[in-house]
Amino acid sequence: MLILSSPSGAGKTTIARRLLAAEDNLQMSVSVTTRPMRPGEVDGRDYEFTDLERFGEMVEADDFLEWAEVFDNRYGTPRAKIREGLAMGRDFLFDVDWQGAQQLSQRAGSDVVSVFLLPPSIADLEARLRSRGTDSEEVIAGRMDRARAEISHWDAYDYVVVNDRADDCFDRVRTILHAERLRRERQTGLVDFARELMR
Amino acid sequence: MLILSSPSGAGKTTIARRLLAAEDNLQMSVSVTTRPMRPGEVDGRDYEFTDLERFGEMVEADDFLEWAEVFDNRYGTPRAKIREGLAMGRDFLFDVDWQGAQQLSQRAGSDVVSVFLLPPSIADLEARLRSRGTDSEEVIAGRMDRARAEISHWDAYDYVVVNDRADDCFDRVRTILHAERLRRERQTGLVDFARELMR
Repeated sequence: MLILSSPSGAGKTTIARRLLAAEDNLQMSVSVTTRPMRPGEVDGRDYEFTDLERFGEMVEADDFLEWAEVFDNRYGTPRAKIREGLAMGRDFLFDVDWQGAQQLSQRAGSDVVSVFLLPPSIADLEARLRSRGTDSEEVIAGRMDRARAEISHWDAYDYVVVNDRADDCFDRVRTILHAERLRRERQTGLVDFARELMR
Repeated sequence: MLILSSPSGAGKTTIARRLLAAEDNLQMSVSVTTRPMRPGEVDGRDYEFTDLERFGEMVEADDFLEWAEVFDNRYGTPRAKIREGLAMGRDFLFDVDWQGAQQLSQRAGSDVVSVFLLPPSIADLEARLRSRGTDSEEVIAGRMDRARAEISHWDAYDYVVVNDRADDCFDRVRTILHAERLRRERQTGLVDFARELMR
C-alpha cells in the first residue's frame, strides 16, 4: 500500500498516472466519494460516486479502511477490495491527504509506505493551481490555505520528495516503491527459499 | 550506514566494489583486524591491520562500534571515523556478518539499513567458493558450514536480495540506498524547507 500525498497542485496526479502506467502490479485504490463528478471523470475508474446517505451506511457498516470529509465532500477507501487485492499480491496506490495517510498507517501498519510530495516553492504551487483555470480566486485562496495546512504535516510521512522536475520526482517515487518491495517482510516465499538453501 | 552482509561466496565483494565506484558519497568502513594481510591487500584501504594486543586495548577503550571474532581473527569498526564521516553527511558501507549487523543496528538504530544477499542456490554458492582456488577442501567445508549458519540469520535484515545476476543485484542494492536517502528523517534541511513553504 503506497500512499502518495501532497498539497493540491504539487503534481501528485501526474506522478501517480506515470507510476500506474509504468508498474504492472500497481493499481489505484478507487475511493468512494460524495462529491459531484467532474468533466472527464468516469464512475468506478476515478471514483465510485455515491450520495451522502449511502456513504453514511458504509461508514456505519465499517466498510472503509479510512474516510474523510474535504470541502463538504466525503471520500473513503473501501476495505474489501484492498484486502482481496493484497491477498493476490497486488500493490495499491492511495491518493489521500495526511489524515487518510494517518488512518491507513494506523489500520494497516507495516503494509503501508507513505510518500509526501512537496512543491519546489510556494510560488510554484500557486502558479500550478492557477494554470488549471477551472477555479475562482476564492477557491484558489482556499486551496492555498489548505496547501499550507497539508504541508504542515510533512513530518507524518515515511518519505519526502521535492517535485522540482517531474521526471526526477517520478524516478524517486518509483525507486521508493522498488526498494520497499525488497523489504524482507514483503517478500513472500523467502522463508521456504532460505530453508531450501540451508538443507 | 548501509550494511551489506552475505554468506561468503554470495558475491558481496563485487556488489560492494560496484556500489563504491558508482556512489560518490559512499565510502567503505575500513575495519581493524588481527588477521594476516592477504596478497593484494593494502593496509588502511582494505583493513587496518593490527595485532591482538592493540586490538584488545581498543576493545578496552570502547573504540569499536562493533567487533567480532571470526576464524580466530578479530574484526572491529572504529567508532570515531564513522562518527566524523556521518557528521559530514557521508554514507558508509559495512561489510560485516550477522553479529556485526546486529551490533551496529543496536548501537546506531535508525541510522542503519541492513541488506542481506542470498545466493540463487547452495550449489552456486559452493561453486563460487571453489572457483577462488585459494583454499583447501577443509577450509571450503568450513566455509559452507559457516555459510549455512549465516543464511539462518536472513530474517535479521531489513532487506533481502537474491544475487542471481550481478547486474540485477547491483541495481537492487543501489535502489535500496537511493530510496533510503529519501526517508524523511535522513533529509537534513527539510525542517527549514517546509517552514519556508508555509510562510
